[in-house]
Amino acid sequence: MKKNQPSSRRRLLQLGAALGGGLAARQESARAEESDRRLGKPLSAYGERSPFEKSGRSVRLTKTPEAGSSGTPLGDSYGILTPSALHYERHHSGVPNIDPARHRLVIHGMVERPLILTIEEIKRLPSVSRIYVVECGGNSGGEWGPKTGSDAQRSYGLASCSEWTGVPLSLLMAETGVRPGASWILAEGADACRMQRSIPLAKAIEDILLAYGQNGEPIRPEQGYPLRLIVPGWEGATHVKWLQRLKVTGQPHMTRDETARYSDLMPDGKARLFTFVMEAKSVVTFPSGGQKLNGAGLYEITGLAWSGRGRIERVEVTTDGGRSWRNAQLQEPRLRIAFTRFRLPWTWDGRQAVLASRATDESGYVQPSKQALIEVRGLNSGYHFNGIKLWKVQADGSVTNADA
Amino acid sequence: MKKNQPSSRRRLLQLGAALGGGLAARQESARAEESDRRLGKPLSAYGERSPFEKSGRSVRLTKTPEAGSSGTPLGDSYGILTPSALHYERHHSGVPNIDPARHRLVIHGMVERPLILTIEEIKRLPSVSRIYVVECGGNSGGEWGPKTGSDAQRSYGLASCSEWTGVPLSLLMAETGVRPGASWILAEGADACRMQRSIPLAKAIEDILLAYGQNGEPIRPEQGYPLRLIVPGWEGATHVKWLQRLKVTGQPHMTRDETARYSDLMPDGKARLFTFVMEAKSVVTFPSGGQKLNGAGLYEITGLAWSGRGRIERVEVTTDGGRSWRNAQLQEPRLRIAFTRFRLPWTWDGRQAVLASRATDESGYVQPSKQALIEVRGLNSGYHFNGIKLWKVQADGSVTNADA
Repeated sequence: MKKNQPSSRRRLLQLGAALGGGLAARQESARAEESDRRLGKPLSAYGERSPFEKSGRSVRLTKTPEAGSSGTPLGDSYGILTPSALHYERHHSGVPNIDPARHRLVIHGMVERPLILTIEEIKRLPSVSRIYVVECGGNSGGEWGPKTGSDAQRSYGLASCSEWTGVPLSLLMAETGVRPGASWILAEGADACRMQRSIPLAKAIEDILLAYGQNGEPIRPEQGYPLRLIVPGWEGATHVKWLQRLKVTGQPHMTRDETARYSDLMPDGKARLFTFVMEAKSVVTFPSGGQKLNGAGLYEITGLAWSGRGRIERVEVTTDGGRSWRNAQLQEPRLRIAFTRFRLPWTWDGRQAVLASRATDESGYVQPSKQALIEVRGLNSGYHFNGIKLWKVQADGSVTNADA
Repeated sequence: MKKNQPSSRRRLLQLGAALGGGLAARQESARAEESDRRLGKPLSAYGERSPFEKSGRSVRLTKTPEAGSSGTPLGDSYGILTPSALHYERHHSGVPNIDPARHRLVIHGMVERPLILTIEEIKRLPSVSRIYVVECGGNSGGEWGPKTGSDAQRSYGLASCSEWTGVPLSLLMAETGVRPGASWILAEGADACRMQRSIPLAKAIEDILLAYGQNGEPIRPEQGYPLRLIVPGWEGATHVKWLQRLKVTGQPHMTRDETARYSDLMPDGKARLFTFVMEAKSVVTFPSGGQKLNGAGLYEITGLAWSGRGRIERVEVTTDGGRSWRNAQLQEPRLRIAFTRFRLPWTWDGRQAVLASRATDESGYVQPSKQALIEVRGLNSGYHFNGIKLWKVQADGSVTNADA
């Protein structure tokens, strides 16, 4: 390779100017000549990421390390897919180590023909694959209060998007039949706490999947290996992991995790139960909390939007704290109930700026401001926060949440 | 949970009958009761797959373990995405361990303004994400001969599909400008052998990506970390990995890997060079070689189809060795130059059957039979085999290639 001439470096400065000063000239000559000529690592059966990459799930521990949650590092995300290794976690009693050859799914209760199925039998049935977001009902729970999350992961990271493969539950329900009066299903996991959620039968028949595949391979242990429910658009806890039992019933089971938890305490002291749908939401992932801009100039604001009600139709971005909004570009394909990546070029003038995004879904629903949400739901709701998230870009380029 | 009654087991037999005998009744009572109630594993920063899952890349070694290829286990695949850990590999001198902070991309040659860019600078530029298949030009090379691959991995496994994120090369070419007469680009990797390929400038401007993201995280080392080309629809070797240099030229560089290799020797003794496009192709992944059917009955035939020329419009499936064909269902979204998953229910009568798939892409091109391909290209071509792949289901349920 030829050494770069002085003129090259001068011209690099021109590109730097075009992009706003970010691409700085360097004294170095062609570094490529110096790169390693020794043979690299040989072929391998199953790959790993580069040792230079350290992005990880944030771990929010409770009193036992087996119960808690860890968020997807959305600030480091690309595209619309979440690597399975970084899919958010929410466990109530740790990740069981299940032998798929011994695991069974029982379908019983108000059915005509109860069933016990092996994983092998389930995998033999007609299947579908769908790219869906899964979001914890408690995602962004910290945003209700005055001290909001410091970065995208810790504020909005209990949401992840994968390609899920499995059997439509409707197919099995057609096999078992349901008895008159059947209207709910109790789903139970094989984790130590036997996590349980009640789901209306109509949803089960509409679009629930018995999923065993995630992003092209078997579901990861933290996400329910070998079998979980995928309940498109509904809060994550209904997507019961390590699924071992479905009981068809005539009423909801009123389990702990749909009464004491995953319910919304309203200002009048009453609690809303079974608020399943995750409404439209979005977050700017760059620039977002904890990141730093390297001087004024051209940047691409980007982020993720999604809705439990379907497709994202519009994402607006503000750089002045909400006084003005511009439409971001939405990346295709825009899939129902999946992350949609949005992008907007932005020339930063080097002064303090407040950034945010606002999503509109195909139902016409517009993501509300935090204030609007609090007016309706009060401050004890805990779950289902989908308010607009503001990031403050400081004059030194550092990015914090807008409360900092 | 209630114990399953005798009547449940009898009814399970009915479902077994409906599905053709595959779902056999079992004596066991509800096994779920016995499952583990001890706390599971705690939260983790970066997840791993279940220890019960062993699917891996097949490794085809050459005389040095650093040069060779390993295939994606397509027979174990779900949906349209390939896990990054199982993306096929093809290395000419091993996988370099590159520090992204030290890596540089040089763009020089017949340009107005040469550039040296860091990874950080490249990541700052406007980007896009696209789901694309990448296929080695040598994929299915063994199929030209009489002894074809024993399974989907070893015959068709040098093809994988990921969501790639990066900067359109056109954007950087607009910044560098090109001088009159410029018509090709030489791309060079930072691996020990400095893998080089020449690519027409028109393609570079049309749709090539400078990719740094794969399936939502940084590209894996085996796939070119920290930077590779994505050259949509063209043979894999042009997607130069560990990219360190792009030189704009007035002619192809005639490197070893576009003359002695990755060229097609025709029956008349002449070699076709620069046969870039990977034509429409498909393969049945279930049932495929090495798998076994558990008795007669209902199965879902499934597989993958793709084309370097765009979208897959049709996949036909035969179960009688090509005498009759039926249209398979194509899973949406069908993306350009990406895997398309096809599915077709099939009731196996328990007798020998020969299965295959045949893809048609949006250009109208139909995947040819192996015989038709050989008539035109002879037997010395080596690369670019895209013939129909036949699997034989034996009466005992075992599946082999049709030559076995």
